[in-house]
Amino acid sequence: MSGHRALRIAILGFGTVGSGVYRMLRDNQASIERKSEAAFEVVRVGIKDASKERILDANIFTTDLDSIVNDPDVDIVIELMGGVEPAARLVETALRNGKNVITANKELIAKEGSRLVTLAKSHGLDLHYEAAVGGGIPIVQPLKHQLAGNDVLKMMGILNGTTNYVLTQMHQQGADFADALSAAQAHGYAEADPTNDIDGFDTMYKISILASIAFGRQVPIDAVYREGISGVSREDMAYADLLGYRIKLLGIVDAADPEELRVRVHPTLILKTHPLAQVDDVYNALWLHGDFVGDLMFSGRGAGSDPTASAVVGDLIDVARNISASGPGSAIPYGAEAQTASMENLRTAYYFRLRVDDRPKVLGQISTALGNDEVSLSAMEMRALADGEGEIVFLTHPCREADYMRALHVIESLPSVRRVASSIRVEA
Amino acid sequence: MSGHRALRIAILGFGTVGSGVYRMLRDNQASIERKSEAAFEVVRVGIKDASKERILDANIFTTDLDSIVNDPDVDIVIELMGGVEPAARLVETALRNGKNVITANKELIAKEGSRLVTLAKSHGLDLHYEAAVGGGIPIVQPLKHQLAGNDVLKMMGILNGTTNYVLTQMHQQGADFADALSAAQAHGYAEADPTNDIDGFDTMYKISILASIAFGRQVPIDAVYREGISGVSREDMAYADLLGYRIKLLGIVDAADPEELRVRVHPTLILKTHPLAQVDDVYNALWLHGDFVGDLMFSGRGAGSDPTASAVVGDLIDVARNISASGPGSAIPYGAEAQTASMENLRTAYYFRLRVDDRPKVLGQISTALGNDEVSLSAMEMRALADGEGEIVFLTHPCREADYMRALHVIESLPSVRRVASSIRVEA
Repeated sequence: MSGHRALRIAILGFGTVGSGVYRMLRDNQASIERKSEAAFEVVRVGIKDASKERILDANIFTTDLDSIVNDPDVDIVIELMGGVEPAARLVETALRNGKNVITANKELIAKEGSRLVTLAKSHGLDLHYEAAVGGGIPIVQPLKHQLAGNDVLKMMGILNGTTNYVLTQMHQQGADFADALSAAQAHGYAEADPTNDIDGFDTMYKISILASIAFGRQVPIDAVYREGISGVSREDMAYADLLGYRIKLLGIVDAADPEELRVRVHPTLILKTHPLAQVDDVYNALWLHGDFVGDLMFSGRGAGSDPTASAVVGDLIDVARNISASGPGSAIPYGAEAQTASMENLRTAYYFRLRVDDRPKVLGQISTALGNDEVSLSAMEMRALADGEGEIVFLTHPCREADYMRALHVIESLPSVRRVASSIRVEA
Repeated sequence: MSGHRALRIAILGFGTVGSGVYRMLRDNQASIERKSEAAFEVVRVGIKDASKERILDANIFTTDLDSIVNDPDVDIVIELMGGVEPAARLVETALRNGKNVITANKELIAKEGSRLVTLAKSHGLDLHYEAAVGGGIPIVQPLKHQLAGNDVLKMMGILNGTTNYVLTQMHQQGADFADALSAAQAHGYAEADPTNDIDGFDTMYKISILASIAFGRQVPIDAVYREGISGVSREDMAYADLLGYRIKLLGIVDAADPEELRVRVHPTLILKTHPLAQVDDVYNALWLHGDFVGDLMFSGRGAGSDPTASAVVGDLIDVARNISASGPGSAIPYGAEAQTASMENLRTAYYFRLRVDDRPKVLGQISTALGNDEVSLSAMEMRALADGEGEIVFLTHPCREADYMRALHVIESLPSVRRVASSIRVEA
């Protein structure tokens, strides 16, 4: 196409995303070559299991991954294995050998990205990872480029399709968490061991990456507060609906006060009128508020073979343009580690649900406990249940998390309170 | 910051956007310098009217714009004047003098972009224009980069804040077009002469730019079908609502069949469940469907001082990174002119409203005329009005535009039909 030889690509990991990348390069070859002014050839594919059937010529496959990143004939390495090791070692070797790298590996970038991107830059190479967050939705590069002039004051993202599917099922079908999770597994939207998604690890990796880019300072994952969705019940979904909210697993970055940068992942009540509340099923979205750009939202398919391939191939086209222009890579390191704030000074509203003895004075005791800790209420729902039990749901005004937690502890120990059935943070 | 000298910026045009750019560079200086590894200095500002009060030191202002683009001390020119001339000549001179250029000028890019971007590339320079479409929403560069691997099968955008504000007012307040337009003018959302917005020229410029990028082929504006919103009445808004739709001015690109690339701007009935239907007031949004990425949407503030400054400064940071890496610019020309299809073979559904004599057989005659031209109906509403007049609203199934137009012509000439009050295309 361009008169130059084709760029030689090696793919590490050939599951659904790897084969999606291969199909995209083949199906859209003409337009990709026109836009990138380059031709591509997949010359090596690294796999774990040599026995699976493959859509490509068998002799380009190997289980010897080190031989690929040391192969002088490879120009670009696409890492799609997932997990930190051996991916980190292979990416590092590829960079040291002068190869540009593209990865879709959020855990790798969240844990080792700062070091690897700095290494890429020092070698004048690209290390792109658009597919690591939001699948096919352009998020990573727009944050690095088009939005870079903004101080991002707040970001909230639905960044995990599995949990969003489960919560959508619970909302739409009135399903229990366990049943919705089984349905997700049956549809292939959740893995047999769903811990990584359900407990919020995946969202934690992604929001730490976005926070690091937005602030130009690395936000390590152990600075991210994390809570999963297994404690969300269908009762909570129903009460939230009644109060005008949906429950979503959000990754949230608070940065209005630069001294109080806080990054957190937890189920969240969000007003039905907020654009994130409309994002259902396996769709992902990032909403942000920048000081100049104002409110912004991106939404689309956050995972899956084809959307992820879209992001990987977009990165590949950029790498090709840099190579053909003989320019240096455009790796953009984050800079030094960010100072992050603890959860106890978070100011937010809370939803909580209590099971109580259905008798006089309960409400008075609870109100007193809340008032003693400066927690005031904005809404309440009360139901008599069977056997002398009652259920009360509260929505607080914004208050300090430490105050709320102390009040909740007092409430939990009241003789008439049987248990705190749930406690979920709220975003207006 | 970086040890290098500050990059010297000249701004052509210092209205709301120009002063927004200046404020953003000043207010967010520390984080911008950190992310771009560069410092910026505004050294020249070109203005038309020397008598206005300015927020900057008077001696950097000049009305001699040519002296700016020929000034060897200027590294980067930001063109914010609007209109084709003298902007085109000044941008061309700046590029020939080795200056990188950033512009927010949609008319300039829609009419002269192909030539100017090619010129920039031939000089190894950047010509960025993120702010020309969608204001602060990252759209232009994500289409060029992260989405470049996709064949974009369809795009639909709300790309003009003024018309979206007017249509939102008409929907929410039941206002007439004229009253809603006056309200928009009173709020500063519409200009005294609103032709450019109301008649769809602004949307035409923007959708032709997006189509050109998405297909890597220039789509000239005279290949874009254009219709404004002045014919949309509050009666149409009410009927659309009843039928489950909202009316929006959309820029639409149909490209599912590469032989039938069609670009059009017109008021459109869109299902309330479509994400674009929720985009109100002055917000802009682009929805697209790519063959690999699937459905995607971006939304945010499409105009105004601060959001537009956000996009301009994002481009500026990219230019600075290229300069500091001593790399060539990343201007991406569109390539040859695209073949576009005419409207007559468009297949879409239609909404139309008739004023008729309220007497027997009218409906039969209309149905016959539609059936004779292969136009079938999906919904109908009928009202008796005063003085023997009736109103009938029809929704068709998708049909060929030429067939529909022929049927409508026959219907218009029926003795019992007083007039065709409106005819609006529909997107599901």
